[in-house]
Amino acid sequence: MAELADLATLEMLASWDQLVMMPGEGATGRGHQLATLARLTHERATSDELGEWLSELDGDDLGDLERDIVRVARRDWERARRVPSDLAAEISQAAADGQESWHAAREADDFSAFAPSLQRNVELAQAYGECLAGEGESTYQALLDDYDFGLRVEDLRTLFGSLSQSLSALVEQARGASAPAEPAIPASVQEQAVMATLRRIGVDQSSWRVDVSAHPFTAWMGRRDTRVTTRYGDGGVESLLSSLHEYGHALYERQVDPALERTNLGTGTSMSIHESQSKLWENHVARHPAFAEVMAAELTGAGFSIDPAELHSALIAVEPSLIRVSADPLTYPLHIVLRFELELAMIEGDLAVSDLPGAWREGIERLLGLQVPSDALGCLQDIHWGGGSFGYFPSYAVGCLIAAQLWETLERDLGSREEDLRRGEVAPIRDWLEQRVHRHGRRLDTVPLVEGATGSGIEAEPFLRYVAPFAAG
Amino acid sequence: MAELADLATLEMLASWDQLVMMPGEGATGRGHQLATLARLTHERATSDELGEWLSELDGDDLGDLERDIVRVARRDWERARRVPSDLAAEISQAAADGQESWHAAREADDFSAFAPSLQRNVELAQAYGECLAGEGESTYQALLDDYDFGLRVEDLRTLFGSLSQSLSALVEQARGASAPAEPAIPASVQEQAVMATLRRIGVDQSSWRVDVSAHPFTAWMGRRDTRVTTRYGDGGVESLLSSLHEYGHALYERQVDPALERTNLGTGTSMSIHESQSKLWENHVARHPAFAEVMAAELTGAGFSIDPAELHSALIAVEPSLIRVSADPLTYPLHIVLRFELELAMIEGDLAVSDLPGAWREGIERLLGLQVPSDALGCLQDIHWGGGSFGYFPSYAVGCLIAAQLWETLERDLGSREEDLRRGEVAPIRDWLEQRVHRHGRRLDTVPLVEGATGSGIEAEPFLRYVAPFAAG
Repeated sequence: MAELADLATLEMLASWDQLVMMPGEGATGRGHQLATLARLTHERATSDELGEWLSELDGDDLGDLERDIVRVARRDWERARRVPSDLAAEISQAAADGQESWHAAREADDFSAFAPSLQRNVELAQAYGECLAGEGESTYQALLDDYDFGLRVEDLRTLFGSLSQSLSALVEQARGASAPAEPAIPASVQEQAVMATLRRIGVDQSSWRVDVSAHPFTAWMGRRDTRVTTRYGDGGVESLLSSLHEYGHALYERQVDPALERTNLGTGTSMSIHESQSKLWENHVARHPAFAEVMAAELTGAGFSIDPAELHSALIAVEPSLIRVSADPLTYPLHIVLRFELELAMIEGDLAVSDLPGAWREGIERLLGLQVPSDALGCLQDIHWGGGSFGYFPSYAVGCLIAAQLWETLERDLGSREEDLRRGEVAPIRDWLEQRVHRHGRRLDTVPLVEGATGSGIEAEPFLRYVAPFAAG
Repeated sequence: MAELADLATLEMLASWDQLVMMPGEGATGRGHQLATLARLTHERATSDELGEWLSELDGDDLGDLERDIVRVARRDWERARRVPSDLAAEISQAAADGQESWHAAREADDFSAFAPSLQRNVELAQAYGECLAGEGESTYQALLDDYDFGLRVEDLRTLFGSLSQSLSALVEQARGASAPAEPAIPASVQEQAVMATLRRIGVDQSSWRVDVSAHPFTAWMGRRDTRVTTRYGDGGVESLLSSLHEYGHALYERQVDPALERTNLGTGTSMSIHESQSKLWENHVARHPAFAEVMAAELTGAGFSIDPAELHSALIAVEPSLIRVSADPLTYPLHIVLRFELELAMIEGDLAVSDLPGAWREGIERLLGLQVPSDALGCLQDIHWGGGSFGYFPSYAVGCLIAAQLWETLERDLGSREEDLRRGEVAPIRDWLEQRVHRHGRRLDTVPLVEGATGSGIEAEPFLRYVAPFAAG
């Protein structure tokens, strides 16, 4: 388990380096290095030897932690063994080709150039899901389990159904309000304010890095080497939001119980919980009116005078738009609901790849009331399907819901965070998250974790209560 | 072979990252990741399977390149198999402990605190050498083979004997001359001049990185991702020399025949040849009076006006001193000769560890005419023996000799480089090195490579001709 954990860390290092440090012409070599790492990892993760060790341990008198290690190791081993190496290699090749074809098709706004790759990815995902699906389980369920083990497709359907109804009503309500203009903050000011804000909440040089990359992301090389990235290009508030978002991912990994380090349980448990941690810091801290005072002070200190209320208005402005990654907090989950509906239909054979652009247009009009002028601004905007990822999108919305549930519970336990946030004091939030969420690592799956932390299953109401005021403008 | 090459590259990435990018608290985790990589590499490099493949290939009708791949693979495999895993693990643990103990002992200027670790490293190196030594071969020879396969200890003894005699005479001669004061160049000016100089000789962002680290070094992640580091702290000319030095290492790896990439032959062949490449650029380009015009122009452009002749005087100033890493080009090999004598005597049992400080003092007085005021400035100055490296030091001096031989041959072939270097034109030098040295990768060992490139074996005269003028001041 320690060896597999080290290999996973090396894979993360090689990917981080590629996106942040590597000179461009190193790409071919890096591809080889990553493929070799993946092959070695797969060999070890699926070895007969590992299965034998697990069988031997079954009879032993194990402590709680050891039992969890063996339980999850067996689950991972069995799932990994069900996928033939040839299929895994085909998937990985098709994903590389698909991403390349997607890039070109989006540039050219030409869906037909992407359709064959997408078709291939769908077929391979179906084959992959069939290998993994349990008795009477759907293919899509098996794909979802890769990202969020134990989250049920039926429950998602119900949850997203009521969520999209309620949100569409709020979108209607918001349509009347006028969104404030986004402040034009110079990149150097953004950078200074982001760095100062991160320092206030615990980001120091001894165990963190903050770098720039084309798309913000977080990497962790063990608990004491955490690396977040952001970008300062847009002239608006994106860097403030995204740096807090990435901080949430990073903090999760840093606060896993040290006893789990270099075991198979020593990382975040699922995509939804990870996203709930980033969304908690993005939505409930960075978008909190009291914390706007901290960020406005840092911006002002960096030479860009701005009123906290004005900053906060920009941070919570609602305006239905075509692009997911720049969507406001209220409409964001609707972008996800659409993707969930469409990928589910494609995997289940209810939607032909050639019908995707039309279904996308229909969905955007139904959910957001907008016309899609081109596929580049429609179904070609995200890389996920090009890379063969199906079952990943839901976690973006589920994360928003769980974040709101956790925040309500946290404020019930600790009292309103307003006074603390006004002073940039987040230690009680960090400690609460460590106890309720982070320390468990992979010992608890998504649903039991949420139930343990909040006392109820995943639900939409707390999120709806959180966004409702934004609709009023 | 490709897998082993990829693992070696990942090891280099993890080490580069640790020295250049990693936050300090990541060190423990990085230690685990590197140990896992080393274990996986060792497993594969010594596997029965690999031996079987090589045996099968023996009977096949192979082309020239394939024959070389198999020949060197068999040599590496056989050597690796002779070392028991337990001994390898002990050596690696003792090296880690020894480096820590060395750090503390040097800080405290207390040789006795380091002696037990050194004793242990010597004993383990003896045991390791005995595993590897061929019929009638000495233990030290086996250690030397790790760094420079095929270079004979007897030849080194003869070479270094005559070299030290001639150099000591030149040191006597230099004692009269007064060394010029080193120019005090601000760090920011150094950086600008170093970057501009490197750009002129081909260092571009698409396949290079230039970073800062505590000790300058070079890393390569395949042929199109080369990373050199330097430091700007000293206020003098070190960064100019060391950046050209590291460029030489980097260029060697970049110009290995692309057909050898991801084979076992696709890297530099030995420590001596690698050092000859760095020394060629440091001694024969950076210290060339014509190239001083280029560097002086870059320094002046960066705001530090300096006369080329003044810069050149500083770059070739001779002054016997106690510390190897800051030694001038003339006295540098004498520091190495002393270390070679002493490590050879320790490994052969002719010098007790407890007698090392005295032997060091005697040697420095004999070779450089200096009194050693403390062990910190004496036998505690280098990390190598603390890290268990014996047989590594000679390559530093042999590299100087080979560099001078190559430079004489190159100028015989291409004509004097003076006019080209005045304009910063180095393409013919790069091409000549590619053809004569670099492209071979590991297909030729040190001695045959030198013979092929220069028409003679390793000899001291070209180097003595190179440094003689420096003694005149």
